[in-house]
Amino acid sequence: MTEIALQDPLAFPVSPRNRVKRKHERASYDREAVFAVLDAGFLCHVAYVLDGQPYCTPTIHWREGDVLYWHGSSASRMLRKLEGGTPVCLTVSHLDGLVLARTGFNHSANYRSAMCFGTAHLVNDPEEKAHALLGLVDRFYPGRAAELRPSNPQEIKATTVVSMVIEEASAKVRAAGVGDDEEDYAHPVWAGVIPVSMTIGEDQPCPRQLDGIEKPAGLAAYRSGRRLDDVLLEAQRLYEKAAQSD
Amino acid sequence: MTEIALQDPLAFPVSPRNRVKRKHERASYDREAVFAVLDAGFLCHVAYVLDGQPYCTPTIHWREGDVLYWHGSSASRMLRKLEGGTPVCLTVSHLDGLVLARTGFNHSANYRSAMCFGTAHLVNDPEEKAHALLGLVDRFYPGRAAELRPSNPQEIKATTVVSMVIEEASAKVRAAGVGDDEEDYAHPVWAGVIPVSMTIGEDQPCPRQLDGIEKPAGLAAYRSGRRLDDVLLEAQRLYEKAAQSD
Repeated sequence: MTEIALQDPLAFPVSPRNRVKRKHERASYDREAVFAVLDAGFLCHVAYVLDGQPYCTPTIHWREGDVLYWHGSSASRMLRKLEGGTPVCLTVSHLDGLVLARTGFNHSANYRSAMCFGTAHLVNDPEEKAHALLGLVDRFYPGRAAELRPSNPQEIKATTVVSMVIEEASAKVRAAGVGDDEEDYAHPVWAGVIPVSMTIGEDQPCPRQLDGIEKPAGLAAYRSGRRLDDVLLEAQRLYEKAAQSD
Repeated sequence: MTEIALQDPLAFPVSPRNRVKRKHERASYDREAVFAVLDAGFLCHVAYVLDGQPYCTPTIHWREGDVLYWHGSSASRMLRKLEGGTPVCLTVSHLDGLVLARTGFNHSANYRSAMCFGTAHLVNDPEEKAHALLGLVDRFYPGRAAELRPSNPQEIKATTVVSMVIEEASAKVRAAGVGDDEEDYAHPVWAGVIPVSMTIGEDQPCPRQLDGIEKPAGLAAYRSGRRLDDVLLEAQRLYEKAAQSD
């Protein structure tokens, strides 16, 4: 698997850092597989090290090609001091189901996860920062940035954006039913998958909404009952399409 | 806030490691607040360091008092070598809503998160491991361990359980509507909260289910349309009650 991945121009390189150790049959190093997990998620978790202590911080991430951006992080204090950047691991995970087998050992979960490795930098360049802050809105809410009151210089300054080029990455997916040992299927206990998904609820419009303001077409996909991961994937495709036509 | 937290016997101590730096008005160091976030989640993310490189691994966690357990991790290879344990940060996050304001700067998310710091150890003691593996099933699925084909010694050996005492922790919660600047409420754009929740779907029973086997009473809470976080909190309470009556 390693050799194939290394030769595949659409795959991330594989090293001891990103090679999947447990259940490697569930792993992939393809960009397409990694991006599908990243783009379906709103929250990520970023691991970084400060004085030997690891930190795991949840935040909002978005992606442009092989570049990941994320929103203001406790790491920013450290990053200001580290001009060369700092190594991080950014992980996005989706829980898709609880897998109840006939013995404890075969209990599992259905999930999709992606771990990305790279060097985090503060986005300081004004042009790159302005572009990133546009992405932070439009990547999630198609066309919304143009409808907002534009950001002022103080707001731009007060928003921390961190970025990294994905140097290595892996995706891991379990999407299957119960896998019991052959002799255990005769054991008389209920077994099955209980699916779960991140689901959108009913809008809660701002109580101070101006009269006559309707939810715009760009937000139509965010409607009650839909899966958030599906909507986020669609929004990412729209964002990429808009970038191409610019 | 720090002094109050340090004097409160129900709060975790506060140090530079767990003191919340950004939006500290959303923070709490109380056990009750931290446990409420931990116990409502199935997935956690664990950050650890190996040769200066941070890793962020998703896994399943559960809790007994101030002790966190989690399931086999890539860190286990490292832990075998580190008898004194290794520092980790275990984080659980729930996304509760997308907050769309009238300017990019005031866009936000509703969420609950808990970051826990401690020293991770492999659970090797046979009695502690047997107890932990029981918890891994019964904490999520009340009474299920007794219904399963019992684990055999090979299965117990092949399951890695990691534990840590929570030395320090913080919880952070945003549960609010749109917070725009006063002068921006007149800006004519839709604003509001789009709530999201992890929702349970329809059971997918194992196709090889024996005739006449029904879903047991202990799994009744896992029914389509319910929020997973609510069900997990109920299951944790049942698990704690069962432990008290033992």
